[in-house]
Amino acid sequence: MDERAMRAVRKERPEPGAVLSRLPVPEPGPGEVRVRVAAASVCGTDVSVWHWNEWAARRVRPPLTLGHECAGTVEAVGAGVDPRRVGERVAVETHVVCGRCLACRTGDGHACANVRILGLDRDGAFADRLVVPATNAWPVPDGVPWHVAALLESFGNAVHTALAQPLTARTVLITGAGPTGLGAAAVARAAGAASVVVVESSPERRALALRMGADAALAPDEADAGAVRAAAGEASGVDVALEMSGSPDALRLCLAAVRSAGRVAVLGLAPTAAAVDWAEGVVMRGVAVQGVTGRRLWQTWLDATRLVARGLVDLSPLVTHRFPLEEVERAIETAAGGHAGKVLVEIGGGSP
Amino acid sequence: MDERAMRAVRKERPEPGAVLSRLPVPEPGPGEVRVRVAAASVCGTDVSVWHWNEWAARRVRPPLTLGHECAGTVEAVGAGVDPRRVGERVAVETHVVCGRCLACRTGDGHACANVRILGLDRDGAFADRLVVPATNAWPVPDGVPWHVAALLESFGNAVHTALAQPLTARTVLITGAGPTGLGAAAVARAAGAASVVVVESSPERRALALRMGADAALAPDEADAGAVRAAAGEASGVDVALEMSGSPDALRLCLAAVRSAGRVAVLGLAPTAAAVDWAEGVVMRGVAVQGVTGRRLWQTWLDATRLVARGLVDLSPLVTHRFPLEEVERAIETAAGGHAGKVLVEIGGGSP
Amino acid sequence: MDERAMRAVRKERPEPGAVLSRLPVPEPGPGEVRVRVAAASVCGTDVSVWHWNEWAARRVRPPLTLGHECAGTVEAVGAGVDPRRVGERVAVETHVVCGRCLACRTGDGHACANVRILGLDRDGAFADRLVVPATNAWPVPDGVPWHVAALLESFGNAVHTALAQPLTARTVLITGAGPTGLGAAAVARAAGAASVVVVESSPERRALALRMGADAALAPDEADAGAVRAAAGEASGVDVALEMSGSPDALRLCLAAVRSAGRVAVLGLAPTAAAVDWAEGVVMRGVAVQGVTGRRLWQTWLDATRLVARGLVDLSPLVTHRFPLEEVERAIETAAGGHAGKVLVEIGGGSP
Amino acid sequence: MDERAMRAVRKERPEPGAVLSRLPVPEPGPGEVRVRVAAASVCGTDVSVWHWNEWAARRVRPPLTLGHECAGTVEAVGAGVDPRRVGERVAVETHVVCGRCLACRTGDGHACANVRILGLDRDGAFADRLVVPATNAWPVPDGVPWHVAALLESFGNAVHTALAQPLTARTVLITGAGPTGLGAAAVARAAGAASVVVVESSPERRALALRMGADAALAPDEADAGAVRAAAGEASGVDVALEMSGSPDALRLCLAAVRSAGRVAVLGLAPTAAAVDWAEGVVMRGVAVQGVTGRRLWQTWLDATRLVARGLVDLSPLVTHRFPLEEVERAIETAAGGHAGKVLVEIGGGSP
Repeated sequence: MDERAMRAVRKERPEPGAVLSRLPVPEPGPGEVRVRVAAASVCGTDVSVWHWNEWAARRVRPPLTLGHECAGTVEAVGAGVDPRRVGERVAVETHVVCGRCLACRTGDGHACANVRILGLDRDGAFADRLVVPATNAWPVPDGVPWHVAALLESFGNAVHTALAQPLTARTVLITGAGPTGLGAAAVARAAGAASVVVVESSPERRALALRMGADAALAPDEADAGAVRAAAGEASGVDVALEMSGSPDALRLCLAAVRSAGRVAVLGLAPTAAAVDWAEGVVMRGVAVQGVTGRRLWQTWLDATRLVARGLVDLSPLVTHRFPLEEVERAIETAAGGHAGKVLVEIGGGSP
Repeated sequence: MDERAMRAVRKERPEPGAVLSRLPVPEPGPGEVRVRVAAASVCGTDVSVWHWNEWAARRVRPPLTLGHECAGTVEAVGAGVDPRRVGERVAVETHVVCGRCLACRTGDGHACANVRILGLDRDGAFADRLVVPATNAWPVPDGVPWHVAALLESFGNAVHTALAQPLTARTVLITGAGPTGLGAAAVARAAGAASVVVVESSPERRALALRMGADAALAPDEADAGAVRAAAGEASGVDVALEMSGSPDALRLCLAAVRSAGRVAVLGLAPTAAAVDWAEGVVMRGVAVQGVTGRRLWQTWLDATRLVARGLVDLSPLVTHRFPLEEVERAIETAAGGHAGKVLVEIGGGSP
Repeated sequence: MDERAMRAVRKERPEPGAVLSRLPVPEPGPGEVRVRVAAASVCGTDVSVWHWNEWAARRVRPPLTLGHECAGTVEAVGAGVDPRRVGERVAVETHVVCGRCLACRTGDGHACANVRILGLDRDGAFADRLVVPATNAWPVPDGVPWHVAALLESFGNAVHTALAQPLTARTVLITGAGPTGLGAAAVARAAGAASVVVVESSPERRALALRMGADAALAPDEADAGAVRAAAGEASGVDVALEMSGSPDALRLCLAAVRSAGRVAVLGLAPTAAAVDWAEGVVMRGVAVQGVTGRRLWQTWLDATRLVARGLVDLSPLVTHRFPLEEVERAIETAAGGHAGKVLVEIGGGSP
Repeated sequence: MDERAMRAVRKERPEPGAVLSRLPVPEPGPGEVRVRVAAASVCGTDVSVWHWNEWAARRVRPPLTLGHECAGTVEAVGAGVDPRRVGERVAVETHVVCGRCLACRTGDGHACANVRILGLDRDGAFADRLVVPATNAWPVPDGVPWHVAALLESFGNAVHTALAQPLTARTVLITGAGPTGLGAAAVARAAGAASVVVVESSPERRALALRMGADAALAPDEADAGAVRAAAGEASGVDVALEMSGSPDALRLCLAAVRSAGRVAVLGLAPTAAAVDWAEGVVMRGVAVQGVTGRRLWQTWLDATRLVARGLVDLSPLVTHRFPLEEVERAIETAAGGHAGKVLVEIGGGSP
């Protein structure tokens, strides 16, 4: 391969689809590093941008390299970055935060008001090379294989949501068993939850949920609040509900199934305004609701890395499909189908 | 007065209104005390029960003595209660909790799943005498006059909502300046909030809000998120929003005006399911929403009592109207008008 | 057996030892229940009282029935207690709290300023029957055998200490592997700790620690801060240290081994004032230290019960010795030896 | 003045004292800014370094410019810093943190394991010009005069300690009324503490404590736990104790005076290992102890700035002495006397 050129999946115009192009290898600027991408995984956001739905059309300004969840090896550093980082295995935090806004200044950088996101606001990870700020390249121990390292960003969403409250000895409902919900089920199991009940429409994903550590997996049409409470073994309601699906019905189920003074953490993005019974569901029962976005910088990365590196969570079953970079469109469509676990795009990774 | 009989405002039948009747003085059972009521205040709930709206018709089973917010003097104790409590000045917690449900057992008795409420589920406080569990009779120092002591239960809602998060050096929005919102403004000011912005439709209540410590009081039609942020002196959004009105529009304003990673505490009861933009308002900005009900048992009572007893909050301006028990209907209608502060029913209180 | 008499281990006089006597079966007063004791376990406190050390001589006023950790069946209830509780299997909370002090009133009843303790301040559990307040009799599911149920009070100390901070994905040091330290190791493992390092002088107990879930068990003379950090796999120091031994050296090790901004929870009772380097150990590194006493009422009991009932923690290996009530002195001396796990006194328990 | 030269208070050799020298004006490196110093204030650390006590001899490597607490105007920026910052009024955070250690990565940068401190590890603030990382130059609103801005770093210690727990409606003990303890008293008053009791040996400082908002100021020889509790109006003990003196006796007083399940925050640095009764003082009463160092980055700066900018705390009374840079030795000796409030060194500040 020509060391000055690289492959990249480019959306050239504001329309559906993208093309595999050749681009010059980018140089890292001050404070940045260049990563040789080993593997990337497909996120629902990637599907939206590829399909160019209404949200994507509003948000994204082509031309742009797509993709964001990835892992690889640092191969060059910009001015001011420790040159010993060359050769470091890293996973990539895809939120580039400003460091100056009120949230960034007070320990909540994950909620940065000026965040720029790889694959949305600047060139992303479906490419041989990627340039990111040095702090966004998170070191990964040798024992973590590429296909797991590439999942750490997405798994970080699961960790952030799950560990937003204590789970040990708590009863837990998870609505949605896409890859992030499945990761949350694994975290809840690793954290010693008293019971983990998953609600999910896809039978494949329900089966995967049980494999990842759920005690029960229900279809939405059989999962009212009573059924959830019964499955959790606690008639008073679950202590914690994690909404990972983006479905307003699921959000309402979380509020109905949680116990008085319980907690609901919401990662799923409902497409439109969702009506809920605030008086009964939130106020009169003293329920706490936590919106969750991104990953805490960097507590979540530390937690996620330790969970996989020390064998407390095994993400391997999540990877149900793998494609080379040339077949990125098949990867996107497989993820779009709603029955897969995590879909991996293998780019430059050797073993491990 | 015949010591074996007493006056009581009774709803005899499932229909609007109530009558001032004579009833036998009740005897306290085991673990209970009898309180000679000095003063009671009128709550929105009392108005609903009096007017017999849809909610009241579903919830209340006459016959019943109305009213719940009150203060008075312990005059008799039941079996197992320290007889030295006779003569004690007390304010009354109106939630009688079960002590056995999951919430009660884990420090969240305010969210008891089996709560019974004075004036709704058992005889209330618009009467010369009232019987409650001994633990529900909270001691009040001598320096707190009856008209303030009678407000402690209602003020407790304000304290619970306001102190559900740190307020010192924080920018605060309060939507709704009914008596509870006004109390919250006073607490925020006492707690050293950086700024306190109130949004309220009644001009009288806006004026009262400024008197209770708000820095700015806006009418709803001039109060979009930008105006609130400007009034709070923080373009990034307020750190904390307290929803005390029950209006879905106000709830949406809270979510729009709060900063990324900020907090919203909700005490107001929206009458129907309220649609909010969860993705933008809660999830993507990492906002925390806390439903608030009742008063923490008994941290809130301790806090509320200290705030008034040590002169940190002056509740006197809240009392805008006073009526004798015979004029309870006028008291109810004055409270129903939406422009009053707190309406007091004076029953048996001498000085102080 | 005469149903009006029972066996009880009595300390009759302020001196070492105790005798197995016959006493009338006690009647439960208002709000109390009588428990038919199935099994009790031996605590270090029981040893102190039996041996009549200086602390015991100061604290205890004979005559008194000894013992406190126990489980059994409710067989009679006093006035005001639900008679359906007869037949209920229970474990016993041995702290009888006042419910009126500042700590009790603000959610911290475990730190009651007027606590009275079974076997110290009122008759205890080394007896066929025991009378306690009804709230102190905590229901235990059928699947939990007596020898585990009897350990729940002691295990509750471990749960309270361990869950005083998040443990999932955290590195944890535990100093002292007596029964409580061993229980804490099991909780840390169940909670998904990244690593659990135990420091303990007894080789038997170190072996037991590994069996209960520790990743490493070090002898004190090989365990300086560096060795602990190495064993935990985190050169910066452990996130959490749990001091369960009462040794000042162990406390100093906890402060030396914990990372900057880490947490130390202390359950062990140092016999005398212990000198530590506050400036370096606590202040300049921003460390938090939490004193732990008793069990949170009743969150800890809920957590402990779920952990054992749902199979997340197996306490059976902790029970290394069993004696009938007649051999209580051998039970005491075995516990006093410092090499046992938990020593059980079997009183009236059938299966399970 | 020659724009290429500046005055600086230099410790040239490892011995007591320092000299006012002329040095070249330093250039800011990448990511740094140069500040034209308006005013600096004297910290106990400056006194130690000037007097060259044992601790200083161990820690400091001359030659070095002394001083660290200061405020001034950005007059030049290094590569990568927004040039619009030139002209910005700033106060200076004196802890230069590494950003890479575990504490820095998990939201606890104030406890950085590799911190370098101005005036100890790199050139400090008793000079016409100072170079610091751009993030260490905290913007200060126009309304805050230089003599207050210069105090923000020191006041930040007070804010960090005081706001390490809720203070509204809480009873508070503060041991030590040096400038930081006095600042803490002002914060506690602004935060709506139920009562603020200060213990301090200097009569001048006790008087100042009352002026800053304390309700009572006791001399150490009259301040046992009972006297503190009486002065706080709470026989059960104070909710919160803040140790700001570094005296072991004061630490023991904090532990004795705090209530069961109360909190003690410790900023004072005891010179040697301090023996406390851990069993009685911390463990058996379930007390939490928080070591406090530096300022939370940057929540504390935000809080401190708002408290002074919005008039909630008036720091002006703290400034009891002012000296020009030429008289820095008198400034140091005045601070060393133990009776002053804050001693200011005026360097280049005009109005305000």
